[in-house]
Amino acid sequence: MSLVVKKFGGTSVGSIERIKNVAKRVKEAVDKGEKVVVVSSAMSGETDRLLSLAYEISNRPDPREVDQVVSTGEQVAIGLLSIALQELGVSAISFTGWQVPIETDSVHTKARITHIKKERILEEIEKGKVVIVAGFQGISPKGDITTLGRGGSDTTAVALAAALNADVCEIYTDVPGVFTADPRIVDDARKIPVISYEEMMEMASLGSKVMQIRSVEFAAKYGVKIHVRSSFSDEDGTWIVEENEDMEKVAVRGISHELKESRITVVKVPDKPGIAAKLFKALGDNNIVVDMIVQNVSHEGFTDISFTVNKTDADFAEDIAREVAEEVGAGGVERNDKIAKISVVGLGMKTHAGTAGKMFEVLHKIGVNIYAISTSEIKISCLIDEKYAELAVRALHEAFIEDKDVMVID
Amino acid sequence: MSLVVKKFGGTSVGSIERIKNVAKRVKEAVDKGEKVVVVSSAMSGETDRLLSLAYEISNRPDPREVDQVVSTGEQVAIGLLSIALQELGVSAISFTGWQVPIETDSVHTKARITHIKKERILEEIEKGKVVIVAGFQGISPKGDITTLGRGGSDTTAVALAAALNADVCEIYTDVPGVFTADPRIVDDARKIPVISYEEMMEMASLGSKVMQIRSVEFAAKYGVKIHVRSSFSDEDGTWIVEENEDMEKVAVRGISHELKESRITVVKVPDKPGIAAKLFKALGDNNIVVDMIVQNVSHEGFTDISFTVNKTDADFAEDIAREVAEEVGAGGVERNDKIAKISVVGLGMKTHAGTAGKMFEVLHKIGVNIYAISTSEIKISCLIDEKYAELAVRALHEAFIEDKDVMVID
Repeated sequence: MSLVVKKFGGTSVGSIERIKNVAKRVKEAVDKGEKVVVVSSAMSGETDRLLSLAYEISNRPDPREVDQVVSTGEQVAIGLLSIALQELGVSAISFTGWQVPIETDSVHTKARITHIKKERILEEIEKGKVVIVAGFQGISPKGDITTLGRGGSDTTAVALAAALNADVCEIYTDVPGVFTADPRIVDDARKIPVISYEEMMEMASLGSKVMQIRSVEFAAKYGVKIHVRSSFSDEDGTWIVEENEDMEKVAVRGISHELKESRITVVKVPDKPGIAAKLFKALGDNNIVVDMIVQNVSHEGFTDISFTVNKTDADFAEDIAREVAEEVGAGGVERNDKIAKISVVGLGMKTHAGTAGKMFEVLHKIGVNIYAISTSEIKISCLIDEKYAELAVRALHEAFIEDKDVMVID
Repeated sequence: MSLVVKKFGGTSVGSIERIKNVAKRVKEAVDKGEKVVVVSSAMSGETDRLLSLAYEISNRPDPREVDQVVSTGEQVAIGLLSIALQELGVSAISFTGWQVPIETDSVHTKARITHIKKERILEEIEKGKVVIVAGFQGISPKGDITTLGRGGSDTTAVALAAALNADVCEIYTDVPGVFTADPRIVDDARKIPVISYEEMMEMASLGSKVMQIRSVEFAAKYGVKIHVRSSFSDEDGTWIVEENEDMEKVAVRGISHELKESRITVVKVPDKPGIAAKLFKALGDNNIVVDMIVQNVSHEGFTDISFTVNKTDADFAEDIAREVAEEVGAGGVERNDKIAKISVVGLGMKTHAGTAGKMFEVLHKIGVNIYAISTSEIKISCLIDEKYAELAVRALHEAFIEDKDVMVID
């Protein structure tokens, strides 16, 4: 008998009607003979409502107390889901993070899971019950409630699947799976039937909203098979699994785009050792996460250093860059908020030469200028003007996924 | 340095503005040098909202899951209150029932506190923190969340005050204290400065809404001094304390009324042993709480048995009474939903003769018929027509509290 962890996001449990619908789906699985552990997010909008209450009182609410408040969202959802299942005649029991317990470190609002005690869950499964676990939350060594950060319910589901050695971790969402590109931009975007952990991590970090990178990382580490699928239909979605040789036959698995970054450039930096280190240490010390970093060869003893950060950090990062620029005698700091990062991702790049060249050619043909390039073994990202983002995604999708020629725009 | 437990009800924390106001009041106490433990209810309306979600899914939701859902109301309130205190520069930390822990039995939705582990709270008080505890909730031996039933936050506060050996348990509410009668009915109702536990229990059980009887019972058992006072003013409210000789100088402390009962009468019951037992056993087996019971001497081998139950139980109780009536060959069953129970309460009755006589005289003078009478050492209750309830309360208040003569109405 297979053991399945099913995770339902906020929209899937967003109303009493939808909670009943989730209960119906779970009952179908139980009737088929599956042992089921459900992980639920809070009803959609609830986490934001609770957060806004805390922020109405204080601009900097104590993270421990924020977790105390926000974690109630999932607690309500699991209780209601359990009642809905029982109403259908399915024996069920709900557990909060601390009841499992899902043990985490003490970093409130973005804790990491350190250990899951599985005995209580197994005991209830043994009794024939569906166990419903609150996503997104855990308990610190001191006994405080912690939360795992946005998208943390995915991590809860994957971690539970790993701890329980589940056959599969199903992530139910409001889209039918992972797509080759954002279907709102590319009409011909296709559902990807199978994708490797590594590709999925790149897609996630590059802007695909379907799953959080941390949860995919977790799945990769423990070999948890993930099935991303629709809450509203029975058809197969996207399987996220270990890479295999077959996967390398396709050069590009998908096209991602990301609009939430700003580019900051320190210009005319004296080309001396240690300056880049000083800049990025200062940013790191202030908890600013830097994404792309580009430094080119120097001319006449000077170079430019560009980097991208999340738009929400851009003001702060710019201030820090200005301080460092002054200190080291650089020419100044420039900033551009109107940029997009466009990426092609695929395991096949490891063996298919020429992907980078083809990408640049496509962008050139449609008249898009590239500001910066960054590559890994399985992805190539280009920084371009924000206004060309959709155009570029469509052209790259045609060229790589649909395998069509791209028309030249003059 | 005195240790004070302060309990704030749902209306006191009913909005962000009010939560900030509570924080201000607590800060004033801290500034005066008090060590403070706060007990908070859920924001007003929240418990009902959560309950209605559960009942939207099922008519008979699993009590364990109801507690899982409903207990989040207080959890949100304590987190917000803690944030509000910290915003005022007061060091604070919130605890849910299970975090204290407040241990209870396993009777979901109406659990009883069995033990409070005070170490964690004392540790935080020692650090100079205000400790904020969620009212109304606890944890069962199995680790499930339990709730104490309506008004349970009062019980939490009193139990904490007992466990911590606090100097006083302050119950903050939206009225300035306990009154000699409902001030909405009697213009001249006075705030009672001091009342005994016993009198308060009678008042509570007879319809005074200020405090739950169970929490007063608890306070009496452990000798916890209670101070019922307004959330919105600094003036003294009502102290609930051990009885003393002074108290007996006043025959009647207050007048209560209760409109939520129905009277059911089984008429022409054959006067044989065991019939009353059969009737009340059947009611008890079906969890119906019976309040007054009146059976008079029999005439010609028959008697009438009347009892009152909560209106919400009246349909069910009537059905049971009809079954028993048929079984034992009684004449039939009558029911009256339009009744009121009017009571006078006072320790002084123990020593002042004639209170009952005066009460009946007052009711007679204003032309009110008495359907049933029940007495204890310190109270007399009369069942009358609902439409005369306010009139009767006013007349009794004039006669006993204001010590005026009551005018005859012909």
